[in-house]
Amino acid sequence: MISVEEAQQRIAAAFKPIDSEISDIAHLAGRVLAEDVIAHINQPPFPISAMDGYAVRLADGDAPRQVIGTAPAGHPFKGRLGANGAVRIFTGGVIPEGADAIVIQEEVDLEGGYVHFNAGAPKADYIRAAGLDFKAGDRLAPMGKRVTARDLALLAAGDITRAKVRRRPRVAIASIGDELSRPGEPRRPGGIAASSGYGLAAMITAWGGAPCDFGILADNAQEIATVADADAELVITLGGVSVGDHDLVQKSLGTRDFELDFWKVAMRPGKPLIFGRLGSTPLLGMPGNPVSTLVCAILFLRPAIDAMLGTNKATCSLPQRFKCGCRSVRARLRRELPANDTRQSYLRARMSQENGELWVDAFDVQDSAMLSVLAEADALIVRAPNAAAAKPGDPTEVIPLDGY
Amino acid sequence: MISVEEAQQRIAAAFKPIDSEISDIAHLAGRVLAEDVIAHINQPPFPISAMDGYAVRLADGDAPRQVIGTAPAGHPFKGRLGANGAVRIFTGGVIPEGADAIVIQEEVDLEGGYVHFNAGAPKADYIRAAGLDFKAGDRLAPMGKRVTARDLALLAAGDITRAKVRRRPRVAIASIGDELSRPGEPRRPGGIAASSGYGLAAMITAWGGAPCDFGILADNAQEIATVADADAELVITLGGVSVGDHDLVQKSLGTRDFELDFWKVAMRPGKPLIFGRLGSTPLLGMPGNPVSTLVCAILFLRPAIDAMLGTNKATCSLPQRFKCGCRSVRARLRRELPANDTRQSYLRARMSQENGELWVDAFDVQDSAMLSVLAEADALIVRAPNAAAAKPGDPTEVIPLDGY
Repeated sequence: MISVEEAQQRIAAAFKPIDSEISDIAHLAGRVLAEDVIAHINQPPFPISAMDGYAVRLADGDAPRQVIGTAPAGHPFKGRLGANGAVRIFTGGVIPEGADAIVIQEEVDLEGGYVHFNAGAPKADYIRAAGLDFKAGDRLAPMGKRVTARDLALLAAGDITRAKVRRRPRVAIASIGDELSRPGEPRRPGGIAASSGYGLAAMITAWGGAPCDFGILADNAQEIATVADADAELVITLGGVSVGDHDLVQKSLGTRDFELDFWKVAMRPGKPLIFGRLGSTPLLGMPGNPVSTLVCAILFLRPAIDAMLGTNKATCSLPQRFKCGCRSVRARLRRELPANDTRQSYLRARMSQENGELWVDAFDVQDSAMLSVLAEADALIVRAPNAAAAKPGDPTEVIPLDGY
Repeated sequence: MISVEEAQQRIAAAFKPIDSEISDIAHLAGRVLAEDVIAHINQPPFPISAMDGYAVRLADGDAPRQVIGTAPAGHPFKGRLGANGAVRIFTGGVIPEGADAIVIQEEVDLEGGYVHFNAGAPKADYIRAAGLDFKAGDRLAPMGKRVTARDLALLAAGDITRAKVRRRPRVAIASIGDELSRPGEPRRPGGIAASSGYGLAAMITAWGGAPCDFGILADNAQEIATVADADAELVITLGGVSVGDHDLVQKSLGTRDFELDFWKVAMRPGKPLIFGRLGSTPLLGMPGNPVSTLVCAILFLRPAIDAMLGTNKATCSLPQRFKCGCRSVRARLRRELPANDTRQSYLRARMSQENGELWVDAFDVQDSAMLSVLAEADALIVRAPNAAAAKPGDPTEVIPLDGY
């Protein structure tokens, strides 16, 4: 039995970034960049006015200027601004050749085709230089960043139409158990609806992977061994890890070149967790219990997917990192907690906010068979092995459960 | 000019939940429920064993029991457990008729087909009653909840195959400006790449809407008026709200039954924000400036989409609510801030975590033309109108910028 931290380290070490593909900018949101994205152009591409007003020359002092043309956005003034001239300009309009200042419209009086300054001589103001936001050749987003909506606007402004991103890692999910059938299907005596796989697939999608449903496999070695045929970057088995007197998954896969890394992690829920390699494909054998499976996914699967995507944590925003599972926040306990035993515990809990402080309260019922409690939870309280009893108000480590 | 709060209230009041559709459980993640989801079955459907061990009768005291059968998950023992009998049972196995206790395998010795108890007489333990997690008829998820991955596992366990969800509200995006062309396209003199729409579309998708790109429209009344033909629940125009001497959008739409609700919000960035109704369709006219547009989207568009989806905030987890834009957190200022003027300000900033406390630091450059700063930010500091200067360490309101 190994610790959660050691299990996380061994799993992370088993994955490296997978191959990449090119994606159009319209489909880049949420994808992880496989190379730096470099601006093709300056932004702005030319000096532009930051305000509505008049483009003038500083050299002409406070003398009235004759309006000789206009420069709205997209319609540059053709020609050069000479002595005592002014060009009517609008926000985003190109600064006419010869002009070196904008006087905002509130500070002029227009009379007979001339502008007069009512707030003193023009100052070198309101011009946005070419490349103020970024220059051609600047890095707009680094390799390993998960592209946000704001990044997309930035990339578009840099004239980027597509980018190289990591392919979504394929994760095969095989549900094991004679008792299982799909929701809505006829049930055999003693049968239940397979459930973990649906939650797991949604988590995999949210984290950037591509789930492939390998279906429901019976509790026999021959059928379980077929997962070796899954064409995926990672195979997940659900259940079959502690079926009765033996571990069925390990036994079944022994015939298919399965090499065990570890089995059993000192945690609750989720102790029976298998990690190993099926030929060249990593395999994560999760407990059949849905609560254990989903908690194990947050702790072990998300980092595995991140490793395959080559995400660079340094490019993750703090709010994004709260979703990693490997990143936790601090909150204060609403009520006392008893001392913990030797296994790291993840208590289903609810967070609240009070005067800017985070509080968290564990549900009374922590039965790992109860999906209803996990669905109601919005956080997991992390209790270290052998943690002492805690009092109300004590700070504790918490993993927020975001949209998954 | 109205306040941000008043603008948010007027916008929210203009939307109500749209129609619904039926979605298969495999595609429910992130959708908003249009009705309560009710369990079809008990979970577990029958009493099951919580452990590997032996099913026995308490009435038989500590007498050794003869093993008369087995009950693995999915294979119930056929028959009734009589006096001094035991059934070998595994986690998830159906409790045999007549049995009322499980003795875990660690507490028995097996000898000649009989189990002997090495830790005293059996106790009423380790039986999960039928319906322990939930009962047929229980509400598994309420109307207005955004379905999480964990909800999916719960629904599947309740034998749910599909659910009624709100249709994704269609949001048409029209970019207005003679200066605009798509990224990668040839550029006219004074032209720039349209950028806001790409970020906006990704935000709309993240929030549960369906963006429809209405394309780029020239700065003339005839072309702008065509947005009245968009078949959408909400029309967004980008730009054209303060073009030079007049507001082009209002002027152009005057011919198409446009009724203005308000124009201009006392905020920075983003002052020129139009809200009104184009025939029966709400229209949000956003500034052309990408930074202003994306900030306005977080403040005004997200609540509009939420209203159309009928999301019930009470069913939002606290971590999810941090993404709403309308929900903020508290953090402490890393550095001082000057007093604010009369407009509510949203400063681009970065958050950090230190000893469990959130800190935030505004970027030095707050130029609303700089997308690079917005892309690097992971939070917006909210500065109320006329806020006094703030010192390092002062608490402040912050809107975390999550994956958008």
